[in-house]
Amino acid sequence: MDPSLLFPPNAIQTLVRQWLDEDIPSFDYGGAVVGNDIKTAHLLGKQRGIFSGAPFFNEIFTQLNCKITWFIKDGQEFNLDSNGKPFVLAHVTGPSRNILVGERLSLNILARASGIATRAKEMRDLVDQVQWKGKVAGTRKTTPGFRLVEKYSLLVGGLDTHRMDLSSMIMLKDNHIWSCGSITNAVHSARSLGGFSLKIEVECQNKQEAIEAIDAGANVVMLDNYTPDRLAQDSKELKQLYPHIIIEASGGITPSTIQQYALPTVDIISMGNLTQGVPHIDISLKIQKQ
Amino acid sequence: MDPSLLFPPNAIQTLVRQWLDEDIPSFDYGGAVVGNDIKTAHLLGKQRGIFSGAPFFNEIFTQLNCKITWFIKDGQEFNLDSNGKPFVLAHVTGPSRNILVGERLSLNILARASGIATRAKEMRDLVDQVQWKGKVAGTRKTTPGFRLVEKYSLLVGGLDTHRMDLSSMIMLKDNHIWSCGSITNAVHSARSLGGFSLKIEVECQNKQEAIEAIDAGANVVMLDNYTPDRLAQDSKELKQLYPHIIIEASGGITPSTIQQYALPTVDIISMGNLTQGVPHIDISLKIQKQ
Amino acid sequence: MDPSLLFPPNAIQTLVRQWLDEDIPSFDYGGAVVGNDIKTAHLLGKQRGIFSGAPFFNEIFTQLNCKITWFIKDGQEFNLDSNGKPFVLAHVTGPSRNILVGERLSLNILARASGIATRAKEMRDLVDQVQWKGKVAGTRKTTPGFRLVEKYSLLVGGLDTHRMDLSSMIMLKDNHIWSCGSITNAVHSARSLGGFSLKIEVECQNKQEAIEAIDAGANVVMLDNYTPDRLAQDSKELKQLYPHIIIEASGGITPSTIQQYALPTVDIISMGNLTQGVPHIDISLKIQKQ
Amino acid sequence: MDPSLLFPPNAIQTLVRQWLDEDIPSFDYGGAVVGNDIKTAHLLGKQRGIFSGAPFFNEIFTQLNCKITWFIKDGQEFNLDSNGKPFVLAHVTGPSRNILVGERLSLNILARASGIATRAKEMRDLVDQVQWKGKVAGTRKTTPGFRLVEKYSLLVGGLDTHRMDLSSMIMLKDNHIWSCGSITNAVHSARSLGGFSLKIEVECQNKQEAIEAIDAGANVVMLDNYTPDRLAQDSKELKQLYPHIIIEASGGITPSTIQQYALPTVDIISMGNLTQGVPHIDISLKIQKQ
Amino acid sequence: MDPSLLFPPNAIQTLVRQWLDEDIPSFDYGGAVVGNDIKTAHLLGKQRGIFSGAPFFNEIFTQLNCKITWFIKDGQEFNLDSNGKPFVLAHVTGPSRNILVGERLSLNILARASGIATRAKEMRDLVDQVQWKGKVAGTRKTTPGFRLVEKYSLLVGGLDTHRMDLSSMIMLKDNHIWSCGSITNAVHSARSLGGFSLKIEVECQNKQEAIEAIDAGANVVMLDNYTPDRLAQDSKELKQLYPHIIIEASGGITPSTIQQYALPTVDIISMGNLTQGVPHIDISLKIQKQ
Amino acid sequence: MDPSLLFPPNAIQTLVRQWLDEDIPSFDYGGAVVGNDIKTAHLLGKQRGIFSGAPFFNEIFTQLNCKITWFIKDGQEFNLDSNGKPFVLAHVTGPSRNILVGERLSLNILARASGIATRAKEMRDLVDQVQWKGKVAGTRKTTPGFRLVEKYSLLVGGLDTHRMDLSSMIMLKDNHIWSCGSITNAVHSARSLGGFSLKIEVECQNKQEAIEAIDAGANVVMLDNYTPDRLAQDSKELKQLYPHIIIEASGGITPSTIQQYALPTVDIISMGNLTQGVPHIDISLKIQKQ
Repeated sequence: MDPSLLFPPNAIQTLVRQWLDEDIPSFDYGGAVVGNDIKTAHLLGKQRGIFSGAPFFNEIFTQLNCKITWFIKDGQEFNLDSNGKPFVLAHVTGPSRNILVGERLSLNILARASGIATRAKEMRDLVDQVQWKGKVAGTRKTTPGFRLVEKYSLLVGGLDTHRMDLSSMIMLKDNHIWSCGSITNAVHSARSLGGFSLKIEVECQNKQEAIEAIDAGANVVMLDNYTPDRLAQDSKELKQLYPHIIIEASGGITPSTIQQYALPTVDIISMGNLTQGVPHIDISLKIQKQ
Repeated sequence: MDPSLLFPPNAIQTLVRQWLDEDIPSFDYGGAVVGNDIKTAHLLGKQRGIFSGAPFFNEIFTQLNCKITWFIKDGQEFNLDSNGKPFVLAHVTGPSRNILVGERLSLNILARASGIATRAKEMRDLVDQVQWKGKVAGTRKTTPGFRLVEKYSLLVGGLDTHRMDLSSMIMLKDNHIWSCGSITNAVHSARSLGGFSLKIEVECQNKQEAIEAIDAGANVVMLDNYTPDRLAQDSKELKQLYPHIIIEASGGITPSTIQQYALPTVDIISMGNLTQGVPHIDISLKIQKQ
Repeated sequence: MDPSLLFPPNAIQTLVRQWLDEDIPSFDYGGAVVGNDIKTAHLLGKQRGIFSGAPFFNEIFTQLNCKITWFIKDGQEFNLDSNGKPFVLAHVTGPSRNILVGERLSLNILARASGIATRAKEMRDLVDQVQWKGKVAGTRKTTPGFRLVEKYSLLVGGLDTHRMDLSSMIMLKDNHIWSCGSITNAVHSARSLGGFSLKIEVECQNKQEAIEAIDAGANVVMLDNYTPDRLAQDSKELKQLYPHIIIEASGGITPSTIQQYALPTVDIISMGNLTQGVPHIDISLKIQKQ
Repeated sequence: MDPSLLFPPNAIQTLVRQWLDEDIPSFDYGGAVVGNDIKTAHLLGKQRGIFSGAPFFNEIFTQLNCKITWFIKDGQEFNLDSNGKPFVLAHVTGPSRNILVGERLSLNILARASGIATRAKEMRDLVDQVQWKGKVAGTRKTTPGFRLVEKYSLLVGGLDTHRMDLSSMIMLKDNHIWSCGSITNAVHSARSLGGFSLKIEVECQNKQEAIEAIDAGANVVMLDNYTPDRLAQDSKELKQLYPHIIIEASGGITPSTIQQYALPTVDIISMGNLTQGVPHIDISLKIQKQ
Repeated sequence: MDPSLLFPPNAIQTLVRQWLDEDIPSFDYGGAVVGNDIKTAHLLGKQRGIFSGAPFFNEIFTQLNCKITWFIKDGQEFNLDSNGKPFVLAHVTGPSRNILVGERLSLNILARASGIATRAKEMRDLVDQVQWKGKVAGTRKTTPGFRLVEKYSLLVGGLDTHRMDLSSMIMLKDNHIWSCGSITNAVHSARSLGGFSLKIEVECQNKQEAIEAIDAGANVVMLDNYTPDRLAQDSKELKQLYPHIIIEASGGITPSTIQQYALPTVDIISMGNLTQGVPHIDISLKIQKQ
Repeated sequence: MDPSLLFPPNAIQTLVRQWLDEDIPSFDYGGAVVGNDIKTAHLLGKQRGIFSGAPFFNEIFTQLNCKITWFIKDGQEFNLDSNGKPFVLAHVTGPSRNILVGERLSLNILARASGIATRAKEMRDLVDQVQWKGKVAGTRKTTPGFRLVEKYSLLVGGLDTHRMDLSSMIMLKDNHIWSCGSITNAVHSARSLGGFSLKIEVECQNKQEAIEAIDAGANVVMLDNYTPDRLAQDSKELKQLYPHIIIEASGGITPSTIQQYALPTVDIISMGNLTQGVPHIDISLKIQKQ
């Protein structure tokens, strides 16, 4: 499945226009210096990584009247060669000043997108090592205005986006629950407004809460801040009682502990640090001398 | 000097509206569940850090008709107390659902902004230890659409933004230079279009290039990818010849090497990793039970 | 539950601004004629109906610096009195020209919103008469740009919005299915991209298709264009096999046939004509002579 | 005359982008399921009607990189054939997912636009039957944000748009008149601000008001809520006195009474129900199996 | 009549936001230097002129949280006093940096708006001297994006805006006429699309064309590039034949010739140089030392 | 150097869309009258001038699907020929109605842009006559929303834009200085926020102020409202002391006095009247009869 098929018709175009405006609010002096001669630039991967961001790169250079030839696809791995030379990811051909206008913006996207895809793939590899069949998912802890890039890169790396926003699956957390008086009230209230077409997830501190949530109509229960041992026990009991319910583990799970949470009775592991503080991947764009 | 005075009149308002739209594209189901009762939430710092992001936090909750009481200012340090309890950064009072609407967006901003301010302060502290009088500066390697937050957080942490965008100071790099035939041609061309009111910076690989750039009219020379030893020698010679010229060191400088580059004859050290891959700071917002 | 709690922070404000721009693209001549004297206008219900649209009315007259006193709430019924005089729904007080600027726009909204709420309530009443516990739901057959008003009015009238848009619950129809080769393939493909947080609904022509869809992982099956008799039989068998699955009836259901489809083993009845060709409700706004 | 020539350069493009954003606010899951294979879909008219909306349909599928072949023009009639099979209105060829992205939006437009054109044509036919030479016109009672489609469809059906908005012809109604003290004052005030280039219309309850309005400088008088008999008499007398004045009849005129109002001394009949509560026309778009 | 009553609800707000963005695209450095202390500035008229632009000035400083006390109204004259000291037009009180942010933008508006109002008033005075009862009108020769300011200032100076845009009164010029084959065809075509609610004006080179236009249904004839003598003769004959028709003189009329064109049988004189190349009025804004 | 290379990627496109919307807010009646036949129009220069505005003209007619053939470039002079016939600047070919839609907007731009370029060239010629090597520069006294056209036209005429906006070079004027207590404080404050990458200019009333500004770190000093004699003396002394400092003369300089200010020790002369009250150039666009 190619996640780039998910993009809505005009969203990337609109974002790219805003991002170009941010970087060139009035005149583009450097561009004027280099002029309009047609040149070719090489997009270079300068370290190992999983590539992500091609749809954004394509849109930037389409708006700038450049042509791109790709030598990699989103989701594929790249690395320096045995001589330490960079991997040539793509060629970009067009007017010099347009290449330079798009250079920094496109690299800022690719460095972050590929960083997230790379971390995502590492998580997937870790749970595959223990033959886990569940899904690792992100959260809403994304950079404001940049969520489309970050959620997309989770998919590119083989993970699940989790809900996209507050208009998707209804999540009821501590704040929601006690303000309604009980889990039961909160779920009923959510169902009456959200209707039948949205799932409801409830954040639970223990098995009793999970049972209350499920009985009230929840589709997903999140077991929050559990130790692996406790998770193993509670999730097993819940699965036996409610085989149709999705069980999510969340809270403080890291690359070094993820394998312990990858239990057969757990469906989803979600982690905020898939989109926060992720190391960037070093990629550059160099115009070729003729 | 308070860098929040720098924000243009409507920019934060416009960004916050776009960011809220991103997180709530159609209906807000969770908000409807909790309703409109007036509550107070505590903004909690859950680890050590330098705080940054108050102007954005203010705008979010102003749009959401909430009131804020602050117990910290941007640029100040916070930490857990001696019992490991979080630092109460602020109180937010308003309708429950509005607090929840703003919760994730505001935390996404503060976690990143404070992360950058914290790293920035670390850099400033490192160069202060060696009594350096120059400035550490960022780059244009920011997250698309989020630059205002990131550049602001550099200032909050005591650093310099470097140029904001392609419409500010003219930087001439390898691509610009060889496409004009020479450094001299590139600088003359930049001056004729950019006029007298913008500075011109030239990326130089050695002292000869720097001298050519200065003689052609550059205001700043960037000595790129230098070792500390070579930087010490070249910058000293250039400063003697051209005391009015600003000398910038850049390329591969890290927290562990920055003190070696903090030389008396260097004015500016710039680093891309001040805004890339920066660890986030853990901050949360919790509605208080009554 | 008050569905007006569902509105996202800035959406109504943005829509109202666009709608005012549509009606006053350059100068407002009529407004200039009447001037700025403070007047009060009465909002008058001139026939029986279920009222809907207050949040939009509020936003219009807030932008126009007028004050509103309400004598009805969304979802309540109004009618002419025994003398045939209109029901006074609200008072609006403000500058004459501002009242007139908002008059036509606000009535255009209320006439449509209340028309939909009125029809919605009629449907709810019909199924209540046969003690049906399921939900009547709308579709995406809304007026472009006006969906928020129309979906909201369904809720006001006691119905379910069904999915809001293509980014909500995934619906797989004939086109999707045969382009994937089979229902099973289509559902698997939807799950791999949409992840665990979205429901999947499959449009089915018969029981065998429904069983295939459910086995592949669908959460909702829509039995399309069924007669009541056939629906009774198939839905009963499916419910026995799969008690957790939601069963939706759709296709050609009208006010005169809805009660026949309101079967105990059917969870959802959806109808496109809840938002298409709905009679408007006659409401007017009259400035009071002093 | 082809009314599609009236559209301003970018208006339809802007509307279509907003409408697509409304329907696909984040990811497009269904589209990703079907993929990018090139398919052809048939646009099918499933009942009798006057077609309207081609310029919008064209823009939607242009933005979605599809090609259209038309078998009908706006304003032409279509119907089921003698076997009850739908009329093939057009073919649309392009990537499967793009066809599905545009499907519901385009049908939502065509169903409403053709509904209005169909009703409009019925009204024109009714007055043609009595050899009336005047014009039937709409009002500003349109759906907010959707006026361009609705006014255009009136023209397609052979009617007159009436004024487009508050910045067009100045209409002075009861509110305007009594707030100025008299019809004369209101007209003079309108002329002094609106200048010579706009027409002024005055809503009149009787012949005396009409005469006052005309003497003050009105170009159009609207005889409001008249019976046909009274209209015949007053309009005749006014036409004799003021042959250059345009006389409009309005208020409560319906398809069953319109012929009685179609009098030789009446120039314009306006009706709000041309754009309110209009039955939609059933049109569908079906991808063809290969 | 106060022309500021003509402004649509949000138009000025939107324009002012765009204009502020143009002048402060990223950070506001000068503002940060002066800080947020509350100061008062004087708006000073430094030469004779007719004041125009208050609604824009009000909006700018409302967005910037400043308060204004006015000592003049739009349309009034101001001048240096007998000692040559400037006229104090208004006081503005608010944070120093906000006053400086609005300073240049507001002066750029007032200098142009008052320049146009001043020239407009001079034209009105010239035709008043010869007791002419007609109207002097502008054209569409305005600065793109700035039309609202310029048309408003014509009204402030006592003139007529002429049509606002291509969606107002239909003007048929040489290009329109010969492309339709004849004046008669062009007018009929305009009427069939524009409907009854818009006026039609035809540019005519001689009396025969004017008669053809009027007979075809034109409401206004423009006699183009006439000498005063020829205008006197033709307009007189046309007025006798068609007393209801509006006659406009246009083409090359200047302040020194306008009185010759101000003939009793001419209704309108239009001039492009009312909004082109108009001298600005010198106005400044000075913060007061305490 | 071609200043059209300075334009950012999407800015002109966005402006042209807004400007077209301003001129055609709803329907385009005149365009519908002339229809879609392909015609060619001639762009005619009807007086002497320096041409400016081609990038805007190109964008307008690109959006309108017309083709342009140019016979002049921005910055070149045109004039009537010896028979007084206009200079054919360009041919525009496309649908009649599209040519007419773009006609007035494009002429409104060219008339102003060429007016500014013409005045700019006159200033450059005047200082060239006295062999001055400095630069004549504009100011921020531009028309709101139209700055890009006006600054560009200064470059086309051979001048300098001066700073583009408040986010470019920091200018400290009287208001800034006394609010900080001293020139020294103001410059230090500016440097601490603006960083190393922006120039700082200080408006000075005398040599002592200039020396204070320079010693505090200013890059440019503006000697304000000087007589030529006093300017000669002070600028000479300052240049001897500080050869790297840029000296600008400003305040009340006119075409008749500019040569007196064009002194060897002055680098920049700035004038507000380069963009205020500039006579427009008469240009027209005429469709050719076939």
